Amino acid sequence: MGPAYTTAYRYFVDDPDTPSIEKTVFDRHFVGMASTFPARESGYVTDSAAGATALATGVKSYNGAISVDSDKRPLTSVLTFAKAKNKKIGVVVTSQVNHATPATYLTHNEDRNNYNQIADSYVDDGWKTDVLLGGGLKYFHREDRNLIEEFKKDNGHFINHYQQLSDLPDNKPVLGLFANIGLPWAIDDKQANRLKTMTKAAISALSNTEGGFFLLIEASQIDWGGHKNDIATAMAEMHDLAKTLEYLEVFVAENPDTLVVLTADHSTGGLSLGANGKYEWEPKVLRQMTMSPQAIAQKITEQKLNQQTLNTMLNFELTDEEYALLYEIEAADLVNAITINIRQIIDGRTNTGWSTSAHNAVDVQVFALGNSKNIFSGSQDNTDIAKKLFKLLK
Amino acid sequence: MGPAYTTAYRYFVDDPDTPSIEKTVFDRHFVGMASTFPARESGYVTDSAAGATALATGVKSYNGAISVDSDKRPLTSVLTFAKAKNKKIGVVVTSQVNHATPATYLTHNEDRNNYNQIADSYVDDGWKTDVLLGGGLKYFHREDRNLIEEFKKDNGHFINHYQQLSDLPDNKPVLGLFANIGLPWAIDDKQANRLKTMTKAAISALSNTEGGFFLLIEASQIDWGGHKNDIATAMAEMHDLAKTLEYLEVFVAENPDTLVVLTADHSTGGLSLGANGKYEWEPKVLRQMTMSPQAIAQKITEQKLNQQTLNTMLNFELTDEEYALLYEIEAADLVNAITINIRQIIDGRTNTGWSTSAHNAVDVQVFALGNSKNIFSGSQDNTDIAKKLFKLLK
Repeated sequence: MGPAYTTAYRYFVDDPDTPSIEKTVFDRHFVGMASTFPARESGYVTDSAAGATALATGVKSYNGAISVDSDKRPLTSVLTFAKAKNKKIGVVVTSQVNHATPATYLTHNEDRNNYNQIADSYVDDGWKTDVLLGGGLKYFHREDRNLIEEFKKDNGHFINHYQQLSDLPDNKPVLGLFANIGLPWAIDDKQANRLKTMTKAAISALSNTEGGFFLLIEASQIDWGGHKNDIATAMAEMHDLAKTLEYLEVFVAENPDTLVVLTADHSTGGLSLGANGKYEWEPKVLRQMTMSPQAIAQKITEQKLNQQTLNTMLNFELTDEEYALLYEIEAADLVNAITINIRQIIDGRTNTGWSTSAHNAVDVQVFALGNSKNIFSGSQDNTDIAKKLFKLLK
Repeated sequence: MGPAYTTAYRYFVDDPDTPSIEKTVFDRHFVGMASTFPARESGYVTDSAAGATALATGVKSYNGAISVDSDKRPLTSVLTFAKAKNKKIGVVVTSQVNHATPATYLTHNEDRNNYNQIADSYVDDGWKTDVLLGGGLKYFHREDRNLIEEFKKDNGHFINHYQQLSDLPDNKPVLGLFANIGLPWAIDDKQANRLKTMTKAAISALSNTEGGFFLLIEASQIDWGGHKNDIATAMAEMHDLAKTLEYLEVFVAENPDTLVVLTADHSTGGLSLGANGKYEWEPKVLRQMTMSPQAIAQKITEQKLNQQTLNTMLNFELTDEEYALLYEIEAADLVNAITINIRQIIDGRTNTGWSTSAHNAVDVQVFALGNSKNIFSGSQDNTDIAKKLFKLLK
């Protein structure tokens, strides 16, 4: 979520019928910026694992590292340090819970791709989190091992429906897995603002304690929208994060001893607001969308939809040429091919630019609210963020 | 100069043989960010005229406006306000001195493209600047009017060689025009760090007064490098700006009542550090370049150069396919076609991404040093920057 994403979000939520453009929750709490380069051996462009390792432990490592240093020695994360200081801890993500970012806060591994090992370690190293919410069922309920049963036998409370979030116990660890891998895109998920919903439930279970709590929240799929060069889903993910931050804004007002720090591990996709040599970015069609390009592509492959039905799904009128791009194509992976074409039609309507399917080394913003927020002001490195948190926890 | 440019510059000047990546002068003085959207009627993506009008006057206007509002009424700039407060004023740019940014600080016009009208107004409205340095000879010495002769007759001191900068009078207005339109690219200019050289000379002429001074400095051609998607020349322009800011850093240390504020009117080109799906940005070849792609293309069209000579010019080894891209092409504008191919070869070597030849609406950074720098911290609009300056000047 580099600076182009928070700027885009401001114009995405803008009401063009009012005279001025309102500040967003991100604008209200912006305090600084952070560099994100990984350890020397990985060049200047971080991956999510090295970026999250820096934010979790205060140490630069190689791309792929899950809280191990360049010599593959394990590093302590702020989250496990908080646990050792008798705070309750939680993790809420929209990716699988054993994805790079949550993993760096909870465990160690030489390679982020060892998803099963990482999931196993959550159980084998002694269950640490009081609340762990996100996706990843397929890694926890495998043919070779059922980590969910093991967790339950060890007094764990397991849930797999969002509705169960309204009734979490606060005296036993909670594991909530709501999808096989990542959660559905925010724009497609039946649960509106699922990140905010999970965050509220987690805080409710964690905050009922004298010792305080440390909660890691990741709006994981902003990055995924970036990788896919999918501005419609990326904006919907930003909206879920904004709603979460607005909830936290109220929580901090009521609990002024709380600190909230928000940043990104990197930016993705080389998003630009304006493309094709035109001085224009027009998010109007994005504001009206209610399904992701992927979900629309799925429908298209399932049944013949006429142009009118598709216009309704997209909330804008396709030209005949665009309609042909969606129906008169052949590809091995048809859903994927149609999805890509829908995204490109939307890029054309909005004049959105992308330069890569991977990461952009641009510095990221830092937002903070509540107690001690000012120590995150100005220019810093991503490792400084962890170092400042360690100092506060000591 | 959006955030991707200052991040790129950090890695461009990094010495990969040292263990750590040093902070740049931009990192040392980063304090906040600013939104750049123009007045409602121009959408979300500003042009340079509306962006500079906002920074100069504190008022949003339409794209193309030179310090007039949406109803085309003239607006007061911080620079002319400073003049009215009996401060000396100066303008130093690497574009022509009647380009959008300097023009918004000095005059008013309905359309930035009225270059002759704008130049005329500098004389006809009464000469305002104590020092005005940059390019633009062709607009001041025209068939229909010789503004230079008029300026000289009115007690003005005119120069057109950088060497003359070392001996400026401080008792009469100075006009220095060192090129027909914009100055040569920094990477090609015989005068190393020409922006810094002009800035030092201007400050020397302006600072010798009790009342203080207000100097507008624009590293105009960072944006031009962005429009051309030319990372090599953009980084050289950034370097000239960095050297200028380092000089100002020393000036502020010696004159702590001085305030320096640095920002951008917008970002350009959709620059991304990383492209083509690769987690990599490799500025090594940029550090070695001593000529712009445009200057190399010019040489190529003038004479047949062998591959070895070209390798020496570029400071890296061309493949046979790349050599063919430079010699075996036909185009109406051959220099331009070859220039574009050289830029793309460099983009390939560095893995640099671009998404447009125009502007990107991403928020820009704000840097400040010296007296009152803290009032520019955090999130603001570009108009707030002018408003804060007006308040300081009152």
